[in-house]
Amino acid sequence: MIDRDTLLLEHQFRYPLRRHFLELPAGKIEVDEPAEQTARRELLEETGFLARDWSFLTTLHPCVGYSDERIELFMARDLAFEGHPGEDDEFIETVSMPIDEALEKILAREITEAKTILGVFWADRMRNG
Amino acid sequence: MIDRDTLLLEHQFRYPLRRHFLELPAGKIEVDEPAEQTARRELLEETGFLARDWSFLTTLHPCVGYSDERIELFMARDLAFEGHPGEDDEFIETVSMPIDEALEKILAREITEAKTILGVFWADRMRNG
Repeated sequence: MIDRDTLLLEHQFRYPLRRHFLELPAGKIEVDEPAEQTARRELLEETGFLARDWSFLTTLHPCVGYSDERIELFMARDLAFEGHPGEDDEFIETVSMPIDEALEKILAREITEAKTILGVFWADRMRNG
Repeated sequence: MIDRDTLLLEHQFRYPLRRHFLELPAGKIEVDEPAEQTARRELLEETGFLARDWSFLTTLHPCVGYSDERIELFMARDLAFEGHPGEDDEFIETVSMPIDEALEKILAREITEAKTILGVFWADRMRNG
């Protein structure tokens, strides 16, 4: 979260679907890596931001029919731009977007990536108590 | 939707994770099958219900990093129990659950299947205008 009403999203090209998606920052958990550490690492690698305030939201299972994949969803607040830690190859174009605009894009079917929709809905619920 | 405030969920054993999940009815789109027809077919096969009122909500992409899989999400209302059309092997235990209870189970991390959380949030939003 950039602030209470604004999300940091990524504009990322996805090869399997051959187009760009608006997505929450995310990445693969490495062997023996705690999920929050993955979240911190990927946020910094992909966006250059550090967050001082992390809270775990939930575990998501995106494809229970054929995979044991899980996504650990965190909310990151109190962001500070740190810059990129090393190689540039993971750096992704970011977009600062008000939650209300993201909700409109979900209803307009412009944001369709599952974990991102979930994160937007979740952030909206927390904002509204 | 059983009614405006109540969802029809399934209690389904998922082999990849070796446990039961609470889920919205869903199924695989067959070759050349329109998505709404898949939704109607799977609802009947898995639950024995017909719905008179169908509305398309959105397309979801659950795993953009490695797959072009898409989920077409529909809201089915005005349900009538028709019974099972033939073989019993696809019949799944169903649960009638108030949206508020489903929201509690999401926040308690008891419902973790991604499309189901999305459907619950979406149904809640539509109920509240």
